[in-house]
Amino acid sequence: MHFAGQHILSVNQFERADIEAIFDVADRMEPYADRRRITRVLDGAILGNMFFEPSTRTRVSFGCAFNLLGGHVRETTGIKDSAIAKGESLYDTARVISGYSDVITMRHPEAGSVAEFASASRVPVLNGGDGANEHPSQALLDLYTIRKEVEARGGHIDKLRIAMIGDLRYGRTVHSLCKLLCLFDGLTVHLISPAELGMPEQIVEAMRAAGHTVTETDQLENHISHVDIAYSTRIQEERFGSQEEADMYRGRFRLNQNIYTEHCEPNTVIMHPLPRDSRAGANELDSDLNDNPNLAIFRQADNGVVVRMALFALVLDVVDQVDRESRDVNWYTGSRFQ
Amino acid sequence: MHFAGQHILSVNQFERADIEAIFDVADRMEPYADRRRITRVLDGAILGNMFFEPSTRTRVSFGCAFNLLGGHVRETTGIKDSAIAKGESLYDTARVISGYSDVITMRHPEAGSVAEFASASRVPVLNGGDGANEHPSQALLDLYTIRKEVEARGGHIDKLRIAMIGDLRYGRTVHSLCKLLCLFDGLTVHLISPAELGMPEQIVEAMRAAGHTVTETDQLENHISHVDIAYSTRIQEERFGSQEEADMYRGRFRLNQNIYTEHCEPNTVIMHPLPRDSRAGANELDSDLNDNPNLAIFRQADNGVVVRMALFALVLDVVDQVDRESRDVNWYTGSRFQ
Amino acid sequence: MHFAGQHILSVNQFERADIEAIFDVADRMEPYADRRRITRVLDGAILGNMFFEPSTRTRVSFGCAFNLLGGHVRETTGIKDSAIAKGESLYDTARVISGYSDVITMRHPEAGSVAEFASASRVPVLNGGDGANEHPSQALLDLYTIRKEVEARGGHIDKLRIAMIGDLRYGRTVHSLCKLLCLFDGLTVHLISPAELGMPEQIVEAMRAAGHTVTETDQLENHISHVDIAYSTRIQEERFGSQEEADMYRGRFRLNQNIYTEHCEPNTVIMHPLPRDSRAGANELDSDLNDNPNLAIFRQADNGVVVRMALFALVLDVVDQVDRESRDVNWYTGSRFQ
Repeated sequence: MHFAGQHILSVNQFERADIEAIFDVADRMEPYADRRRITRVLDGAILGNMFFEPSTRTRVSFGCAFNLLGGHVRETTGIKDSAIAKGESLYDTARVISGYSDVITMRHPEAGSVAEFASASRVPVLNGGDGANEHPSQALLDLYTIRKEVEARGGHIDKLRIAMIGDLRYGRTVHSLCKLLCLFDGLTVHLISPAELGMPEQIVEAMRAAGHTVTETDQLENHISHVDIAYSTRIQEERFGSQEEADMYRGRFRLNQNIYTEHCEPNTVIMHPLPRDSRAGANELDSDLNDNPNLAIFRQADNGVVVRMALFALVLDVVDQVDRESRDVNWYTGSRFQ
Repeated sequence: MHFAGQHILSVNQFERADIEAIFDVADRMEPYADRRRITRVLDGAILGNMFFEPSTRTRVSFGCAFNLLGGHVRETTGIKDSAIAKGESLYDTARVISGYSDVITMRHPEAGSVAEFASASRVPVLNGGDGANEHPSQALLDLYTIRKEVEARGGHIDKLRIAMIGDLRYGRTVHSLCKLLCLFDGLTVHLISPAELGMPEQIVEAMRAAGHTVTETDQLENHISHVDIAYSTRIQEERFGSQEEADMYRGRFRLNQNIYTEHCEPNTVIMHPLPRDSRAGANELDSDLNDNPNLAIFRQADNGVVVRMALFALVLDVVDQVDRESRDVNWYTGSRFQ
Repeated sequence: MHFAGQHILSVNQFERADIEAIFDVADRMEPYADRRRITRVLDGAILGNMFFEPSTRTRVSFGCAFNLLGGHVRETTGIKDSAIAKGESLYDTARVISGYSDVITMRHPEAGSVAEFASASRVPVLNGGDGANEHPSQALLDLYTIRKEVEARGGHIDKLRIAMIGDLRYGRTVHSLCKLLCLFDGLTVHLISPAELGMPEQIVEAMRAAGHTVTETDQLENHISHVDIAYSTRIQEERFGSQEEADMYRGRFRLNQNIYTEHCEPNTVIMHPLPRDSRAGANELDSDLNDNPNLAIFRQADNGVVVRMALFALVLDVVDQVDRESRDVNWYTGSRFQ
């Protein structure tokens, strides 16, 4: 696809070449995200960071990515007091807000709302999550992390062996990731979940149609033994009818250093979309993994910044100007990479 | 008036020459708001965007206007957790916050609060709305829109024919607009509202004293037949004792494409302060007007940015420096003017 | 101490030479905070202004300080909707957020939380207040104000005579200030409070061990007669079991112009950490003092900006670059110093 001026609404809009183009740009953003260089390429541009549902992490990640390109960020958090609550249509909100901004990131609790908003916007819109529907920048940063981690270990996304663990039914993240994985070849995929929280059938079918080998199971240990990536997810408590129901599943598939040592290959990369639930009842990834160099969860969060920088640079068509408008960082960064 | 260092608190502080000065500067801001040029004239300056009552639209509009001039924005939303809730006087809040900022925009639920705050502030304060009292930047952007729209059609504010429709009793917007219109000559004004929601008598008197011809009516169709501007407003539900009472009036004066075609002149401009209530029970401006080129409601919102830029440039006295500190925009803007 | 890359968590980490180093840098920040010069020394850097408990004043002060050095600010307010509420550990939050930022300021309701966060952060963390525990930048700005005010009157922190008035038991501010005062010599300290709200004994002991003369009393008038500084504090209503209990103490030690004229030396400086409670029942500092040139409470708030600029410049090690990256202010500032 041609990115300039486009909305980024769904993983479905990408072909394999698009993914590779985004990742190439993301690679070029690393000196800036790592604070070795700064760029002012988007000096004067304004991001409308519209979060009609709270999400500190995603909101701040988008905002930082835009700041790192030199732009300003205006934002909103919450829907309660907004014009939408006074009966304003998404069409009107989009016409107005897009007059203020050069690009918009939007999160909204209703599935489809961001696409509806985008259709009326006069500037590119990046979907920051619309309910249980789509969250494409998360899927992209997950896949970017997978690529980086497995390539550092001599592998490749083609032929990847991956386990996805936990709530695969309600986990928007793994749904989108699976769709992206369908663009690649020859994967082995282990779907590990309670039977009631299994991956939706049409996603399983799509992966099989793409030629991947897919196993569905509720057993953890013997299905993480031969994988490059173990991707754990949080039980989406808020999707269940009651806390009691959610608690039946919380903590069902715990991964800790002992299990890892006993069952995993020594290079298996551990991922998680975050936040991980570290309370005693859940603890899907034990904190004793924190010093394991294969725990990639914070590199994953870091990668969110470069992927989002890449999306901004692409839709605003400034990729080739980024390095021209740059210089070395002049402040102390020595404590940055502990 | 001399603008440098002044507060902008009320439409009453302007003479006709002031309005024309503001609008001339607003015209000069358009290349920046349209993203053809960027300026850094307020590089290093800080706006204190203090919203002690939520208003996404106005808050973001002020913030963007300041960013477009190159400045930083620090802001607050809501009063609940503020020092004011711990018994701090507006005097103290103003002394403190004005030490942080170069200029302050303030919204507050109580009438008179912004003027009280301004009297203690060490930097210029722009009233972003104080309860049912004043919202001068909204009145200015409305009048600026009227001027631009009617001049594009060969008219002028003098001799303007305008209909104001809806809740004219509680609508702060139309009150302030009427006061500004008193500075001009020979207008014909149709005030269309339920009898109980009529324009306050002293405003009607002031307009007649200014030499305007004013008609008060509760009939829509025959009073929008010969006007340059049809200015519709939202029923201010929050001002009524109950939702039932508000619902008696919501939807009473609906304007849609059929009514427009049948009753209006072909060039009549439709305005609305936004948000318009698009729920079935209200729908004061039907969405079938969205493709009508005379629907000016989003141009009106866009004009809010240039008018606010003008106010900032005037009170900080940088009008003549704006173009000197500027350059062409370097990112993709091709989707901007759909 | 060597500041580059360090966390600023507690007043206990400073020696006297550190304090003096911070104050020397703060002095050099004044042309920028006073809007005579602007600097872009932190152009491209990002502050993560993480307020997990609301505090408009402190949050905006940190944000402005960073903007005045040329940097961007990303922020959050409130904990309710954050990942922490979904069971995320402070360790995880710190690993993620520190990937977005170049320096972090954090406020959190729990004592010790900021230090825990800092231990996992990859960038310097400045404690913006952790419950009843520490708020070092407030203590520093208080001491900086004392130094400036008494030096302008020919005095010095050594040999200072100071009265602290009000709730000395729960007032985090005065606790931290007392710890800093222990680094200086020969002070006379009057602690004026209801017996039940006295200064914690170990702080009194520490001041005596430092060689200071300390008096504890519940009588105001005769203990403010021979002091350089009268430091009044707010009753921390939120720390009491009931409003009734708090009200027993609110308004117990009121200072107004009459009392000042009758009892104080003509140069005694009045300070307060703000917000002061100006409601009739409290009114610890009467508004009739507002024109008294010795009322330093707003200079105190102003000093918060330069002290916070100094901390940022020190931990990011750009002190020597600040003036190099600077120029004169180009906008109107004539109303700034009323």
